[in-house]
Amino acid sequence: MHALIVLAHPEPHSFNAQLKDTAVETFKAQGHTVEVSDLYAEDFQPAEGPRHFARRARPERFGAQTEQRHAHDTGTTAADVAAEIAKLERADFVLFQYPIWWFGMPAMLKGWIDRVFTFGGVYTAKQRYENGKFLGKRAMLSVTAGAPEPSYSYNGRSGELALLLWPMHKSLVYVGFQVLPPFLSAGIQDGIKYDRPVDERHRIDAYKKGLAERLGRLDALAPLPFNMLADFDDTGRLKPGAPGYSPFIRAEP
Amino acid sequence: MHALIVLAHPEPHSFNAQLKDTAVETFKAQGHTVEVSDLYAEDFQPAEGPRHFARRARPERFGAQTEQRHAHDTGTTAADVAAEIAKLERADFVLFQYPIWWFGMPAMLKGWIDRVFTFGGVYTAKQRYENGKFLGKRAMLSVTAGAPEPSYSYNGRSGELALLLWPMHKSLVYVGFQVLPPFLSAGIQDGIKYDRPVDERHRIDAYKKGLAERLGRLDALAPLPFNMLADFDDTGRLKPGAPGYSPFIRAEP
Repeated sequence: MHALIVLAHPEPHSFNAQLKDTAVETFKAQGHTVEVSDLYAEDFQPAEGPRHFARRARPERFGAQTEQRHAHDTGTTAADVAAEIAKLERADFVLFQYPIWWFGMPAMLKGWIDRVFTFGGVYTAKQRYENGKFLGKRAMLSVTAGAPEPSYSYNGRSGELALLLWPMHKSLVYVGFQVLPPFLSAGIQDGIKYDRPVDERHRIDAYKKGLAERLGRLDALAPLPFNMLADFDDTGRLKPGAPGYSPFIRAEP
Repeated sequence: MHALIVLAHPEPHSFNAQLKDTAVETFKAQGHTVEVSDLYAEDFQPAEGPRHFARRARPERFGAQTEQRHAHDTGTTAADVAAEIAKLERADFVLFQYPIWWFGMPAMLKGWIDRVFTFGGVYTAKQRYENGKFLGKRAMLSVTAGAPEPSYSYNGRSGELALLLWPMHKSLVYVGFQVLPPFLSAGIQDGIKYDRPVDERHRIDAYKKGLAERLGRLDALAPLPFNMLADFDDTGRLKPGAPGYSPFIRAEP
């Protein structure tokens, strides 16, 4: 198996970077090949916009979908985006490692989605969901959070984790991935103390072991259920009898 | 009333920019003062990281919360962030105008949240939610989407709008805002056709009128309900008897 790890954290010595290292070691120990896309180290530019499109379809008014499609059709996709798409094409499994910032992913990672999942290159009106480009590949999120783990329960003040992760999961499903259950490392903070207290260091070690254990048994994990396009009618709503797999898409109001 | 409009779209002639213009005209016609934070025009840098912190608390390992707090305490917050915070402080009402990209906000806007809502400057462990810095201010999201409106219903393939917007709403509530119901302009695409079909142009005009009408009656709109910190116990879970105001925070599993 060839694994890609997409890391979105600004600090090479961070807990997130250490989890990435744990993942690299785990995959190698299993005989898999691995590559890492360290977005901050690559100085990836997250804001989609005109500067990334050298040859414009429509110079007088920038539209992201128009220009992404044109760049793909003319072979002028920006080099950084083309490189990321190639990494995805090579990978059988993609691990995303990132901190939860403000109930979602860091802007760097959102920008990677905005710029890399191109109209034309990665999806089209026909090539998505059950016909997605990355059909056959699997993805998994490994996320860290400062707030304590109970706060990510169904009745927790941070909001239920599965619901906070839905937009990222949904984006991956849109382009054809199957998504495995996420791995959460909560209650690891920065900012309050310059040196980590002993109990936090113990928990960091336990989380690393937990991630390694999880990555060691990927084939035993059932993918999360998501609605495919066939579940919806021409108006964009669930067909009668089709189940809704989350609060975001429900059969009943 | 002093209004701030935060716009996150790369194209000055976009539908989003036109909605921003509609909002400016509407506020002025009502006798309010207005300022616009056009993030792409300002070339706002969305990726939080070490380059934004000239004087580090801890040079050997970057932590966003540590450095945000230190910058605030030493008066060395980056000029662009300080300017955005000042705009928020001046505003009674903040309108966010942006396109839904991949089930969420563009990376540019997420980066504005990541960098501007600083630990120390905008929130602390004590200064949040019902004690949030921006208590007394109101905010509203005006979002555009390419997919048709029914697809953002409770049974729509895009996912229910209110749930897609929850992380942004929750972030605003976290720092003290009351949040008014969002305004959605759906089914306006880019990328398929270079010139808009007549029916789409009619819908664009109707959306502009709708936004103007909505902004003309803000005081008649009830804020969306969100749980405050007082609803949660020390473990971070809802106290017995406290309601959960959304699928993200529920009293029952």
